Amino acid sequence: MKNFRSNSLVSCVGFLATIKKKPFVKFSSALLTQRIMATNTKISSDNKQLIKRSDKIAHFKQDVWSIFTPLAQQFNAANLGQGFMDPPKGRANLKSILAKSYSPLFKRTLDPDSEILPTAGANEGLYAIFAAFLDPGDEVILIEPFFDQYIANITMNGGVPVYVPLRPMGDTNKIMSSRDWKLDINELRSKITSKSKIIVFNTPHNPVGKVFSIEEMAEINKLAEEFNLMIISDEVYDRLYYDPDVHERIANLPGAWERTITVGSGGKTFGTTGWRIGWLIGPKHLIGAALSAQTRIVFCVNTPLQEALAISFDLAETNNYFEYTIGEYTRRREKLMKALTDVGLPYTIPQGSYFILANTAKVKIPEDYPYPDVILQRPRDFKVCYWMAKEIGVVAIPPSEFYCEENAHLAENFIRLAFCKTDKTLDEAAKNLQKLKKYIEE
Amino acid sequence: MKNFRSNSLVSCVGFLATIKKKPFVKFSSALLTQRIMATNTKISSDNKQLIKRSDKIAHFKQDVWSIFTPLAQQFNAANLGQGFMDPPKGRANLKSILAKSYSPLFKRTLDPDSEILPTAGANEGLYAIFAAFLDPGDEVILIEPFFDQYIANITMNGGVPVYVPLRPMGDTNKIMSSRDWKLDINELRSKITSKSKIIVFNTPHNPVGKVFSIEEMAEINKLAEEFNLMIISDEVYDRLYYDPDVHERIANLPGAWERTITVGSGGKTFGTTGWRIGWLIGPKHLIGAALSAQTRIVFCVNTPLQEALAISFDLAETNNYFEYTIGEYTRRREKLMKALTDVGLPYTIPQGSYFILANTAKVKIPEDYPYPDVILQRPRDFKVCYWMAKEIGVVAIPPSEFYCEENAHLAENFIRLAFCKTDKTLDEAAKNLQKLKKYIEE
Repeated sequence: MKNFRSNSLVSCVGFLATIKKKPFVKFSSALLTQRIMATNTKISSDNKQLIKRSDKIAHFKQDVWSIFTPLAQQFNAANLGQGFMDPPKGRANLKSILAKSYSPLFKRTLDPDSEILPTAGANEGLYAIFAAFLDPGDEVILIEPFFDQYIANITMNGGVPVYVPLRPMGDTNKIMSSRDWKLDINELRSKITSKSKIIVFNTPHNPVGKVFSIEEMAEINKLAEEFNLMIISDEVYDRLYYDPDVHERIANLPGAWERTITVGSGGKTFGTTGWRIGWLIGPKHLIGAALSAQTRIVFCVNTPLQEALAISFDLAETNNYFEYTIGEYTRRREKLMKALTDVGLPYTIPQGSYFILANTAKVKIPEDYPYPDVILQRPRDFKVCYWMAKEIGVVAIPPSEFYCEENAHLAENFIRLAFCKTDKTLDEAAKNLQKLKKYIEE
Repeated sequence: MKNFRSNSLVSCVGFLATIKKKPFVKFSSALLTQRIMATNTKISSDNKQLIKRSDKIAHFKQDVWSIFTPLAQQFNAANLGQGFMDPPKGRANLKSILAKSYSPLFKRTLDPDSEILPTAGANEGLYAIFAAFLDPGDEVILIEPFFDQYIANITMNGGVPVYVPLRPMGDTNKIMSSRDWKLDINELRSKITSKSKIIVFNTPHNPVGKVFSIEEMAEINKLAEEFNLMIISDEVYDRLYYDPDVHERIANLPGAWERTITVGSGGKTFGTTGWRIGWLIGPKHLIGAALSAQTRIVFCVNTPLQEALAISFDLAETNNYFEYTIGEYTRRREKLMKALTDVGLPYTIPQGSYFILANTAKVKIPEDYPYPDVILQRPRDFKVCYWMAKEIGVVAIPPSEFYCEENAHLAENFIRLAFCKTDKTLDEAAKNLQKLKKYIEE
């Protein structure tokens, strides 16, 4: 485990600039006093700027259920009220085991009741965050390539996605590391406006496989602090990284905790995507807002699979599940890399997650190849993936789907291959990939 | 079972008026032709007005997963694409048994794949419908009292709730039937504007217990047709009605199917609220839009409990579960009614669902009784419920929470008591209610 280091990388000087650029719309007098003081004093930990809740949820008053249901126990009264108070906050068992498992990873004692929220899958968790914080026109910065669901999650809540790509540095016609895909921090800075509200960060990264370094995260965190941006850190592959890389958490950087919600996924962690249990971890004021939104979207998360997930975590602590999984996926990663090397397709070695981007620039597809309409108007990678499925016998995903239209060309030479597959499927894919050879010009 | 009858109650003459009042914003040329023709010809079943999808979801294009995942099977290719196509549409087993169970009740052969959608609880189903159809400023008509989650579900999606109350007709100081709570159809008509988009209907009704008659539903359906309103029929208590009343479905009225989504709940049907599985039933064009929204909100619904619910329905068909439940709840309804009669509290006999509204006008609470702040500014029913929990030992819910502020006074004399409780709890409540006697002035 790397030590946490980088206090010096993060400064607080951006705070004064932020005051000018992003004034609060709704302000209590106490906060106003803080704000005025803050212009004359160095920001202290008690003196945080708050991330404003969306108007969608800011007006919610205490519901009738949370007022009256506890009275049954408090006054030892017969409860003909129906309704339960606790379910929206999640099952105690699950929150407790998540706190136990994640407290060391977040280097703080997590409060199960106010800093952890089980969600109806990581996807719904993301949706609830956007509902809780986005007002119409608020901008959300996405790093390309991104999880395609982000876009609808943002726009359905009135937000506007803004894009900045990871760019491969080096010769993409040779085997490279996901480490070589870089975010240009000045390009990111150039996308920030007075409307910017949230930056969505993802590590280990899908589909690049990049595991961001603390230095890279510190640059992002510094901008977030300077412009008072909230950070959503999508870490659904947080248990999957390959030697010598280690997953680090942006929430652990100095000052980041108060502005960051980290998103986790039971489905990704235990290969149980059908259970639809995820979780959010963050400070009380952010988690509370997400809970407010989630309570209106799904009311609560299914009970039996929250309990099942709690048991899974409990077992994982004793049977080295996470280490086993890393070992198993390291082996499968090797198998798919070897298959690609054998056929002569360059690729990006992923530091984490379970995807490999392969470069198909050298593959020559017959020019008059017939595509269905749904493929015809899409970038080259859609055509390569369709052709490969039909002629080579391997289904891959075209990553231009994970870019905005303007930047889609950055992805058109790549395909995304997943190795969260059985040996049988990987072996079949390796065999079928051999058919590519006659279409590759060296 | 009552026979379906009322063709004569529903007319199509409203269509021409609708054209003038609620023009389509987005129109294909084919639809435009239909519209022009419709002004000169009687509306035919092929000539329906469509309920417009919200801008939030109308632009969604086909996602990459549904394009590429099926290719693995189609071309017998090794699937390194990850992602599954079917999950968002729900489990085949569950949809199949829902189609089998509900086809006779909807008097049509339901298509499991396009007319039924499992949801992450009825609540999320409602949220998804509002997301799918509401643009900012669109008005949604709610009948008071209403399920309190509706409001946030609507406003979070940009909609504006508009209210029309059920009014008790007769002497509320005597025992009455939920049949006597009436909707004034002219009052409902007066609430319709050019912004009206959806009317939310609920039968059997929570908390009144009213089971709407076909005649009452026909009046609502007629207005919906006249003004091209979509109908959301919240029927989560559809299996719970008491002799001689029978639950009827507004979607079965002439012309209603095409504009109606009916909402069901596994939790209410089998007493498994923690499973969070509900379903939507309606025509393909409405269910498809709700699916589009739901796919972005939760992606899909948990698999194990969809399967468990399918098994539950299967068993219910063979072991008379629904009849047994009605018998059991009829008995518990009697028990709670007797307790209220014994203490001298007038109430509304519910025709369905598991709630009783009791009238507390006669209860004299000490005038200087101390309430916590959260109760102090609320209507009288909040105070009665707090006082009853503490002094009488029975927790009830204040129904003014289910009214808009302007109409909250209509509920201030009532409390809602649930009888979905064990005999032990009901007996304890009956015993404690006796303490009310000394506060009741005849």
